[in-house]
Amino acid sequence: MANVNNMDRLFESVAAKGHVCVGLDTAASLVPPRGRLWLDDADAALAYNRALVDATLDVAACYKAQIACYEEMGLDGLRAYARTLEYARSRGALVIADVKRGDIADTAARYAKAHFSGDFEADFVTLSPYMGMDSVEPWLEAARPGGKGAFVLARTSNKGMRDFEYLEVAGGGAEAGAPGGGKRRVYHAVADRLAALAGKCAGSSGYGAFGAVVGCTEREEAAEIRAAYPGLFFLIPGYGAQGGAARDAALLLRGGNGGVVNASRSIIGAWAAKAKALGLDEGAASVEFAAEAAREAATEMRDAIRAAAGA
Amino acid sequence: MANVNNMDRLFESVAAKGHVCVGLDTAASLVPPRGRLWLDDADAALAYNRALVDATLDVAACYKAQIACYEEMGLDGLRAYARTLEYARSRGALVIADVKRGDIADTAARYAKAHFSGDFEADFVTLSPYMGMDSVEPWLEAARPGGKGAFVLARTSNKGMRDFEYLEVAGGGAEAGAPGGGKRRVYHAVADRLAALAGKCAGSSGYGAFGAVVGCTEREEAAEIRAAYPGLFFLIPGYGAQGGAARDAALLLRGGNGGVVNASRSIIGAWAAKAKALGLDEGAASVEFAAEAAREAATEMRDAIRAAAGA
Repeated sequence: MANVNNMDRLFESVAAKGHVCVGLDTAASLVPPRGRLWLDDADAALAYNRALVDATLDVAACYKAQIACYEEMGLDGLRAYARTLEYARSRGALVIADVKRGDIADTAARYAKAHFSGDFEADFVTLSPYMGMDSVEPWLEAARPGGKGAFVLARTSNKGMRDFEYLEVAGGGAEAGAPGGGKRRVYHAVADRLAALAGKCAGSSGYGAFGAVVGCTEREEAAEIRAAYPGLFFLIPGYGAQGGAARDAALLLRGGNGGVVNASRSIIGAWAAKAKALGLDEGAASVEFAAEAAREAATEMRDAIRAAAGA
Repeated sequence: MANVNNMDRLFESVAAKGHVCVGLDTAASLVPPRGRLWLDDADAALAYNRALVDATLDVAACYKAQIACYEEMGLDGLRAYARTLEYARSRGALVIADVKRGDIADTAARYAKAHFSGDFEADFVTLSPYMGMDSVEPWLEAARPGGKGAFVLARTSNKGMRDFEYLEVAGGGAEAGAPGGGKRRVYHAVADRLAALAGKCAGSSGYGAFGAVVGCTEREEAAEIRAAYPGLFFLIPGYGAQGGAARDAALLLRGGNGGVVNASRSIIGAWAAKAKALGLDEGAASVEFAAEAAREAATEMRDAIRAAAGA
C-alpha cells in the first residue's frame, strides 16, 4: 500500500492487541530493587525497560517513553532513553516519544530530525500547540519519508487543563450538540486545526498520521469530542491514577479502535502491589517478577477496556 | 541579600551590559568554515560557542541556548549543549535553556531537576503553559534552592501565535485600556497567571524570578502589555530576522530594564555578511574572525536598543 504510515500500523496493532499503551516512565523508584543492584539508575532503567517490552509485547498496542524520566539523569539517562527506543523498535514495537515539543519553523524541523531519525528515533512524538500551527506543521513534512506520526496536545487529563485549554473562545461554535455543551473552548480551536491537518495525512486506516492527546478524566464531553473529530486518532492519558476508568476511555474510542490508552505506574510499578498481596518482601522483587506483574496488569487493563468498548 | 535570584542577577547584568541576549543556536551552518575543519558538527559548535562567549561576555546580558540545535545531533549534540552551558556559566554568564518544557506535576519536577542541576544545569529555562499552571508551578519550588528562574511563553513572535495565543476569551476584561484593544486574549489569561506567580518569587529587583516570553513583532500592543505586567521580566524574541526593530523592543522595556532581547543568527552568523562586505572569501572565515564579527553585531544591537530605550 502506498499510503501506510505509523498510525495505520498503530490501528492494526490496536485491532490485534488491544488499546494499552505501556508508559515506560521508568524512574529509578519504579525499577524493582533487585533490578537496581550493581547498576546505576540509567542502566537499571534500560534493563528493566527491555524486560518490560519483552513481557508485554503481545498485549501492548504501543509504548510511550516520557523523556523527562531520563533527562533527569542527564546524558547517561538520555543514552538509556535512546537505547530503550532502539530496543523496543527492534522488537517491532511502536514507540511514542513523549517529548511535548512546541517550537517554530527551523526549530521544529530540528526537533523533528532529532526524534524522527538518529539516536532518538521514535515512531511518534507528542507535540504542544501553544505557539500555533507553525509549531506543528513543520513536523508533517519531516514525518512523511519515514511514515512517522504525532499526537498533539488538545484536552489533557490534568487539573490545570481548565486554566487555558478550557477557556471559552468568544463568538464561536455555540450550536447545540457541539462539544463542550455548545461552548467553544481553546481545545476545540486546537482540535479543529488538527482535524484539518489529519485530513492531509490520512492513511489506509482513515485516521491522520497526526492525532490528538485527549484525556479520559472528563466523562461529560468525551462522546461529543469523539463524534466531532472522527479523523483524529487519540492518545488517551488519565487512566488509573488520574481517575479515568475503562468506561471513560471507551467513550473516546470509535468502533473499538481510534485510540490508545496510556498507563505507566499501574503497569510498570505493579510489582510492589503484587509482592504485597502475596506477602512477599518487596525489597526482594526481581526484574522477572516485576515484568510478569506488568504483563498481568497490562492484560487486565486490555481486557477491561475491550469489555467497556464492546470490542 | 537574602532574596537574590537569577532574575536579580539578570537585572543587574542588563543595567551594566545592555539588553542583548545572544542566542547560541549554533547549527553547523552558522559555524564559520575554518571552525569546522577536523571537527564533527557537535564539537565544532561547542568550540565556536566558547569563542562566542569569550568575545561577547561584556556586551551580552545573557545567553540563550536553543536545545533543538543540539538535540538534532543526538547524544553528541547534547553533550556539546551541556558543555556549552557549563562553559558559559563558568565564565560568570547567565544562561537561558530554551527548552520550552510543558508537562505536569511529577514530570515537571523531573524536567526541573534535569535543567536546574546536573549535566544540563542552566540559570533559566523557557516553559510552555498550554497544559495549565500545574505545568509551571512545580518549577517554582525546584527553582528556589538555586535561585533559578524561568520565562513562560505568553505572546510569541511567530506568525502562528495568532492561532491560539490570540484567541479572544469570552466575557473577560473588556475594559478600555486593557492590553489587546480591550479584548482579552488567551495570552492575557496566561500573563495574568504569570503575574500572580511572579509576585510569589519577587527578588531584590522587584521582578519575579519567573517572567514571560513576549515578542517584539507586534508593535501595537507592546506598550499596553508592558504597562499591564510591571512585575514580569520579559524575554523578547523576534528582533531582526523576524521583523522587530530596536524601537519595538524598547516598548517592552521599563525604565530601561525589565527585558532582554534575543538575537541569534544576526550575531553568531554575522561573519558571513562581514566577510562579504570586506570582499573576503567566506569559506576562509575563522572562529576568531566570526567571534569578532559577533562581538561587533552584539555591540551594535546593544547600542541601538539602549538608544531606543533612552537609556
